[in-house]
Amino acid sequence: MSAADPNAATNAATNAASAGAVEAFDAVDLIRAKRDGRELTTPEIDWLIDAYTRGYVADEQMSAMTMAIFLNGMGRREIRDLTMAMIASGERMDFSGLGKPTADKHSTGGVGDKITLPLMPLVASFGVAVPQLSGRGLGHTGGTLDKLESIPGWRADLTNEEMFAQLREHSGVICAAGAGLAPADKKLYALRDITGTVEAIPLIASSIMSKKIAEGTGALVLDVKFGSGAFLQDIERSRELARTMVELGEDAGVATSALLTNMNVPLGLAIGNANEVRESVEVLAGGGPADVRELTIALAREMLALAGHPDADVEAALDDGRAMDSWRATVRAQGGDPDAPLPVARDQHVVTADRDGVLVAQEALPFGIAAWRLGAGRARKQDPVQHAAGIDLHAKPGDAVRVGQPLFTLHADEPARFARALEAVDGAWRIGDPGDAIEDGGPLIAERIGR
Amino acid sequence: MSAADPNAATNAATNAASAGAVEAFDAVDLIRAKRDGRELTTPEIDWLIDAYTRGYVADEQMSAMTMAIFLNGMGRREIRDLTMAMIASGERMDFSGLGKPTADKHSTGGVGDKITLPLMPLVASFGVAVPQLSGRGLGHTGGTLDKLESIPGWRADLTNEEMFAQLREHSGVICAAGAGLAPADKKLYALRDITGTVEAIPLIASSIMSKKIAEGTGALVLDVKFGSGAFLQDIERSRELARTMVELGEDAGVATSALLTNMNVPLGLAIGNANEVRESVEVLAGGGPADVRELTIALAREMLALAGHPDADVEAALDDGRAMDSWRATVRAQGGDPDAPLPVARDQHVVTADRDGVLVAQEALPFGIAAWRLGAGRARKQDPVQHAAGIDLHAKPGDAVRVGQPLFTLHADEPARFARALEAVDGAWRIGDPGDAIEDGGPLIAERIGR
Repeated sequence: MSAADPNAATNAATNAASAGAVEAFDAVDLIRAKRDGRELTTPEIDWLIDAYTRGYVADEQMSAMTMAIFLNGMGRREIRDLTMAMIASGERMDFSGLGKPTADKHSTGGVGDKITLPLMPLVASFGVAVPQLSGRGLGHTGGTLDKLESIPGWRADLTNEEMFAQLREHSGVICAAGAGLAPADKKLYALRDITGTVEAIPLIASSIMSKKIAEGTGALVLDVKFGSGAFLQDIERSRELARTMVELGEDAGVATSALLTNMNVPLGLAIGNANEVRESVEVLAGGGPADVRELTIALAREMLALAGHPDADVEAALDDGRAMDSWRATVRAQGGDPDAPLPVARDQHVVTADRDGVLVAQEALPFGIAAWRLGAGRARKQDPVQHAAGIDLHAKPGDAVRVGQPLFTLHADEPARFARALEAVDGAWRIGDPGDAIEDGGPLIAERIGR
Repeated sequence: MSAADPNAATNAATNAASAGAVEAFDAVDLIRAKRDGRELTTPEIDWLIDAYTRGYVADEQMSAMTMAIFLNGMGRREIRDLTMAMIASGERMDFSGLGKPTADKHSTGGVGDKITLPLMPLVASFGVAVPQLSGRGLGHTGGTLDKLESIPGWRADLTNEEMFAQLREHSGVICAAGAGLAPADKKLYALRDITGTVEAIPLIASSIMSKKIAEGTGALVLDVKFGSGAFLQDIERSRELARTMVELGEDAGVATSALLTNMNVPLGLAIGNANEVRESVEVLAGGGPADVRELTIALAREMLALAGHPDADVEAALDDGRAMDSWRATVRAQGGDPDAPLPVARDQHVVTADRDGVLVAQEALPFGIAAWRLGAGRARKQDPVQHAAGIDLHAKPGDAVRVGQPLFTLHADEPARFARALEAVDGAWRIGDPGDAIEDGGPLIAERIGR
């Protein structure tokens, strides 16, 4: 009888022969190499990414490869090669013509993470160019562009000329990343999303860093989250991701550092879109929740130090209005009205304390999922977000609360959404007694990684 | 900035919720479960295979799953569930109406493995029905149908009615398997072939056994090859595959056993199509190479014992013409002329001994690849085979040879093919001195597995 299988051996033999003749490889050979735990060479990785971008390597082959990478890992040289190959798949931007240093920030995503909004104008107020090429949100962590689009008139889509002009005049811009940067990454990310290979550190690191290096920033600060609401829960894995990305940045000539920050509880008091803009404006006015202000300041100091301003007094810039001026100018430059009222949801649902005590737990992930179910996020790329939907927290872990006091308010345009949002946060917060341990996972900023 | 990745966590949460409502699953959840080393449940496997067959689970998802199965394995229950789910994807045949026992054989494939050709009529000559639903070859091991199609007039494609009629009248049939058996396996096999996941034991075992169980045979003997020319080289892995398949057969009520047989050297003296038919006819006439006769007899005894004839004198049936009569009747029933001359190749190239001595090595895989390059096999499914192409061996390991004596003859219709075939066998045979170790990997039949 014919065996179903043995042609594999023959393929390998013939491919090996043809690989010797020209610098071309066979996708099956490379998948098997990684499957068997072998390192891929630089020419192999270059070929793989180029052939995948051009469609010569099929999606089903690349998904087998990403699963093999997920399970067998990649060495530092392989990850660097993968990143450089993804950069080479598209265009690279160059900000050297601006005549000022550039600094960017990337967060691995968290619940209530609106830091880009106050951070960009704060750093830009020191004359450092901040080209924040951002994305829209998918799932329980919101997208920076979604948040900013709550501002009437604000436009995310700028031409390259508009972006450069704004950076020249106002030093800061937050806009949609063009399709030309690392197209291989876009294709690969969409594939990883449906094939259960999102959380592989070599793939995450090369995905993030290929876009950031292609973007052409001179300095980069990474906000790598850990904790229950983070993409990687374990601090050890977050640290590994941070180290990998810092190495990639340094290898590519980008001054890079990372902060490992705590995402066990939501960041700030607002989770959504319009309400996160409101909270960001409070921080830019010198106020706002302590944690949002603390992280904004820490990341601004990192960015400014890497960009050549190690002594910049960032607190002063928040308190004396310079950061706010920068915000208003950049919002206006993109068609937004910084004074226009932000949208308000049609319906509210308030959850109150059922006893006196101390709020001891408030888990980030369930609150993120609840805000997403209220309409603040999208399930599919093509869905719109509801800008006024979201959650306002009225207490943070450690706060004393009294029975009947509002703990948080849900906002939605469709009241039918409250039930599933409440389901998500059921058991995600808890009132204890004074003296009980506060389950917030420790300090906000756990570690710094970098030179 | 928005993180590219965290939507994964949200997907998991929402999928978990929806999975509770109806017996439906999310492909990404199942991929991640297997990726993380968890066992898949019976309903999960049933859903996965059904959804994949219907196209609800994409090829790229299934290829990530197969890589996760390759690297993380499957337990016995999971493999059984996978096999049963693939059987359930198509039709099942039922030979109980024949009123006689049925027995079938499957080989994992080897170089020069023509055993089905003498084995079917030999077993059928005892009144046991042998429904050999076979395939065509791909790569370095030939296909049973390709070999038989060397016989002028012989037809592989029978209707179910023709197949049953032939089994009723002559007890034996070798024909093409219909498309209705285990369509999930066909789809999955094509995918595994291009994604480097062919050699996973759970996938090989379920692929082979789903077809054999769906075919409806009452007894099944597996010829599981090991050695350099086998699909799995290590005897340990071949043993694991054999055990897994025997368990699957027993679990499904099919009397199953396996022989582990040596594929370090080609089986018999003929590698090709027409020349393998010639050699099979020699065995049916009571002659033929000792190894082909030995394996034919051993497999026939296994099949007959499992089918209720433990004491059948199979050697007598080869030697007294009963097996030959059965062969001639079944060839004729399928339109073939058992007396017609078989095709002869246009060109020959003879390789002779370069010294006196003993042939100590003759590696199966290179000779298989050489025959394939001569035109005996196909590189792509749609290619035709050249029936007269192939290799005739004139000496086997252990034989004394004299300088200038022919060692093997290459046959091809296109002389341009000789160079690449000779390249394949370069270094694959060796003449040593009397007393040198013979590199044939030991006895032909190494082990029996089964009750």
